[in-house]
Amino acid sequence: HSPLSLAATSVADMRDTLDQLKATSTASELAYELTESLTTEVGPRMVGTPGSDKAIDWAVAKMKTLGFDKVWIEESQADLWTRGDTNAQLTAPYPHKLVALALGGSVGTDGKTLTGDIVRFETLDDLKAAAPGSLNGKIAYVAYRMERHIDGHGYGKAVGARVSGAAVAAEKGAIAFVMRSVGTDDNRLAHTGVMRYKDGIRKIPAVAVSNPDADLMDNALKRGQPVTFSLQLGASGPTGKTVRIANVLGEITGTTNPDEFVLLGAHLDSWDVGTGAIDDGIGVGMVMAAAHHIGQLKQRPARSVRVLLFAAEEIGLIGAKDYVARHGDLKNHVIGAEWDFGNGNIYELAPGVGPSSLNAIRDFAAYLTPMGISLASTNDAKGQSDMSLLGEAGMPAVNFEPDGSDYFDYHHTENDTLDKVNREALVNNTTVYTLFAYFAAQSGVDFRQ
Amino acid sequence: HSPLSLAATSVADMRDTLDQLKATSTASELAYELTESLTTEVGPRMVGTPGSDKAIDWAVAKMKTLGFDKVWIEESQADLWTRGDTNAQLTAPYPHKLVALALGGSVGTDGKTLTGDIVRFETLDDLKAAAPGSLNGKIAYVAYRMERHIDGHGYGKAVGARVSGAAVAAEKGAIAFVMRSVGTDDNRLAHTGVMRYKDGIRKIPAVAVSNPDADLMDNALKRGQPVTFSLQLGASGPTGKTVRIANVLGEITGTTNPDEFVLLGAHLDSWDVGTGAIDDGIGVGMVMAAAHHIGQLKQRPARSVRVLLFAAEEIGLIGAKDYVARHGDLKNHVIGAEWDFGNGNIYELAPGVGPSSLNAIRDFAAYLTPMGISLASTNDAKGQSDMSLLGEAGMPAVNFEPDGSDYFDYHHTENDTLDKVNREALVNNTTVYTLFAYFAAQSGVDFRQ
Ligand SMILES: [Zn+2]
Ligand SMILES: [Zn+2]
Ligand SMILES: [Zn+2]
Ligand SMILES: [Zn+2]
Repeated sequence: HSPLSLAATSVADMRDTLDQLKATSTASELAYELTESLTTEVGPRMVGTPGSDKAIDWAVAKMKTLGFDKVWIEESQADLWTRGDTNAQLTAPYPHKLVALALGGSVGTDGKTLTGDIVRFETLDDLKAAAPGSLNGKIAYVAYRMERHIDGHGYGKAVGARVSGAAVAAEKGAIAFVMRSVGTDDNRLAHTGVMRYKDGIRKIPAVAVSNPDADLMDNALKRGQPVTFSLQLGASGPTGKTVRIANVLGEITGTTNPDEFVLLGAHLDSWDVGTGAIDDGIGVGMVMAAAHHIGQLKQRPARSVRVLLFAAEEIGLIGAKDYVARHGDLKNHVIGAEWDFGNGNIYELAPGVGPSSLNAIRDFAAYLTPMGISLASTNDAKGQSDMSLLGEAGMPAVNFEPDGSDYFDYHHTENDTLDKVNREALVNNTTVYTLFAYFAAQSGVDFRQ
Repeated sequence: HSPLSLAATSVADMRDTLDQLKATSTASELAYELTESLTTEVGPRMVGTPGSDKAIDWAVAKMKTLGFDKVWIEESQADLWTRGDTNAQLTAPYPHKLVALALGGSVGTDGKTLTGDIVRFETLDDLKAAAPGSLNGKIAYVAYRMERHIDGHGYGKAVGARVSGAAVAAEKGAIAFVMRSVGTDDNRLAHTGVMRYKDGIRKIPAVAVSNPDADLMDNALKRGQPVTFSLQLGASGPTGKTVRIANVLGEITGTTNPDEFVLLGAHLDSWDVGTGAIDDGIGVGMVMAAAHHIGQLKQRPARSVRVLLFAAEEIGLIGAKDYVARHGDLKNHVIGAEWDFGNGNIYELAPGVGPSSLNAIRDFAAYLTPMGISLASTNDAKGQSDMSLLGEAGMPAVNFEPDGSDYFDYHHTENDTLDKVNREALVNNTTVYTLFAYFAAQSGVDFRQ
C-alpha cells in the first residue's frame, strides 16, 4: 500500500461512525479502569525499580486482553539512579524537620550530614549573578514560586532552577542546592523531577522542599538571623549503570492502509513517590481505551492506530529518543497526539500540520465544537512531551490542550495517586482521543501536505 | 469588689465603644502576625519537645509586649511520649512505602519490624464484632472514612477508632492496628492524634495511613489476594515519665470589677508534625489580639479579660484539668469562649448561660447580625475544647461556630502550616472575639442567672 493512495474522506462521510464511537466512549470508564489497574497492581514505575519491568508486562497483557491486533515491545537502556532516603532539616534558628525530595539524578551525601548556612536567591538568574566563590561552604537556595496558569506555562519559568540550579550553585562554591518545589500547591509534599550536572563542575546534592517549608525558610530568613540547613541524602547520583527499559506498542490494524499509522502516545514510566496516576497513568489509560473502542467497531478504519507507551520519559524522553532512532524518518506516521498533561477537560485543538490539510483539521474541529473544544489559531504544534521529539523529526501532530490549572498541584509528588483522577474529564478526553484517532485513520488526508 | 455589684449595661449603652473596637480590630492583622511569629520562631510545640518550653517563653514575652496588665504561668506535669520514626509499607502484593504516622501515645516496635496480613474492617463496630482470637498474628485495619460537614460532626463518628481501635484489636489477638486517617482530605499525609490503651490489654502499635494509602489498600484487598503490612515504629509508648507544662495567662484588668473574669481560651501546644498554625496557633493569636485591642481603649471595661493559653490540650486537656483543679468553683469566671476550630468565618453564636441572661445574649447577638452571625436556638454550649471542662464545672460559656468544612483537611497533619491560614476569616473572627470579650466584661450581666 502506498501511503498516499487513500482518497480524502470528510467528517460528513464518517459522521455515523464518529457518533457511534462518541456514544460508546462516553458510556465507558475503561480509561479509569486501566488507570486503577496500573496504579493498584503495578504502582510506581520509575526506571530501575521493579515497577518499571512490571509495567511493561502489565501493558502487554492488557493490550492483548483489549483485542489489539499486534502487541510488542522495543527494548533499550537508560541510566540507573536510585533515590535512597532524604533527611533534611533546619538546625538554626531551631531544629526543624523539613519535607524535601532529592531531584532526579542528584548525588547523595555519602552517608554524611552536610550542614551550611542558607543563602537565598529569588530566582535562578539571581543565583547566576552571584560572584564566584561567594557561596563557598554555603547552601544555595532558590526561592522562586511557580505561577498557576491554565496552560501550565508557569512550569517553563520555574523548571530551569530544577534542571541546572545545582550546577550553577556548585560553580559559585556551594556545597548543596535547595529549591522551592516546582509546584502550585501548598501541601507539605515536595516535587521531584530531573536535574542535570555540568561536565567539569563539582556534583553537589540537590533537593526541593515543599512550598510551606520554603515559606518557613523565607520567614525565618526575614528575621536576619542565620538559617542553617542540614542534609543527609541517600541518592546515588549518576551510577554509570544502565537498566533495561522498553517502549510498549500495540496496534489496531487498518483495513486498506495498514502500514500508515496514527500514533497515540503516553508514557508508561513515572516517578517513584506517588503511583503515577495523573502523570501519566491516565494518559496510558486514555490511549489504550481510545484504540480499544476503535478496535470494537465492526469495520476498522483505513489506517492503523498505533498506541505507543513511552519508556523513561521522566528522566529525559529516553524511550522517545529510541523510537525516533529506530523508526527513521517516521514517514508512515501520518499524525500523532500524546496525553501527558493531567486531569482537566480539553478546551482546544492545536494543530501542527501541512497547510493543505488545515481544512480537514477545521472540518474535524467543528465536530468537536459541541464538546467545548475550539481550534487554535496557530499551526505549529509538535505533540506533547515524548511526542514532541517525533514532531521535531517531521511527524504532523495535534496538541489537545486541557485545563492544566491543577496539574502542578500533584505533579511529581507523593500526591499523584488515583483519587486525584477526574473521572468525568477522563471520559470526556478519552472520547476526544477516540474520535481524533478514528478521524485521522479514516480521513485519507496527508497531514504533511 | 463583689461579683454581682455591677448594674447591667445594654449594647445600646456601649455601642460607641463596640463600633470603635470593631473598626480597630477589622483594620488589624495582629492575630495573623502572632500566628506567623509563633509558627516561625517557635514552630511545633508538642509536649516533651523543646518547642513546648519555648512557646511558654514566647507567650509570656508577647503578652508583656502587647501591654497585658498581668502575665503569669501555672505549671504542672504531663506524660512524656516521643514519636520516633515511622516506616510503614506493604510487602504484598508488592513492596510499596506507605504514608503513615504513629497515633499519639502508641508503643513502638522495639527496633523490630512487625509484619502481618491485613484484616479489614469497615468500622470500629465491625472490629468489635470480630471473634476473640480471630486476629491472632494479623494486623487489624479500620477503613472508615470521615465525612465532611460544616460543623465537623464527622469527627465524632470517626475518632472512636483512633482512641480505642488498638485496644479492641489487641483483645482479638492483633499484633498491630492500622486505620484510615481521621481526615477529610486526599493528601498523602497521615493524621495523628491521641489514642489510649486499656488496662490489662496488650499494648500494640497503632498508626494512621493517609486517605490515598487507605484507598490503595482497599483496592488491593478487593483483588482477593493477601495484603501484607510491615511496620517499624520508633514511638515510645507510655514512658512513665512526666514533663513540665504550663498554662500561660494574661490579663487586661477591669476597672470596677477586676476580680471578675471574662475568659478567652486557646491551646498553646500542638502536634509535632506541622507547625500548629490552624490547631491552634490562630486561636492563640485571636485571643491575644482581642485582649490587646481592649487593652488599647482609653477606658477598660468593668471586668477583667483573662487570656488563658492552655497547655497539653492535644494529649487529653491536661492544662484545662489543672486549671479547673486550681481554680475551684470558677465562681469569678463570668463567662468564657475558646477558639480551637480552624479557619472558617463564624456563622453562629451558641450560648450556654442562665435563662435570665439570655436576653443580654440576644441583645449582643443582634449586634453581630451584620457580620453574618445568627443566634443558635439552643442554650447548652459548654465551650470548645479545653473550655468544655470549665463549662462542665459550671462556668457559663459561648461557642462561636465557624464553617469547619475544611478543618479536618489539615488537622493533626504536616499540612498544618501558616499558608493554610485564611487571613480574612482570622480578622473577622478576631473582631467577633474582641466584641464578645468587651461586651461580657462591660455588661454587668451575671451569666449564671
Ligand atoms: Zn509526564
Ligand atoms: Zn512527569
Ligand atoms: Zn486543637
Ligand atoms: Zn488538635
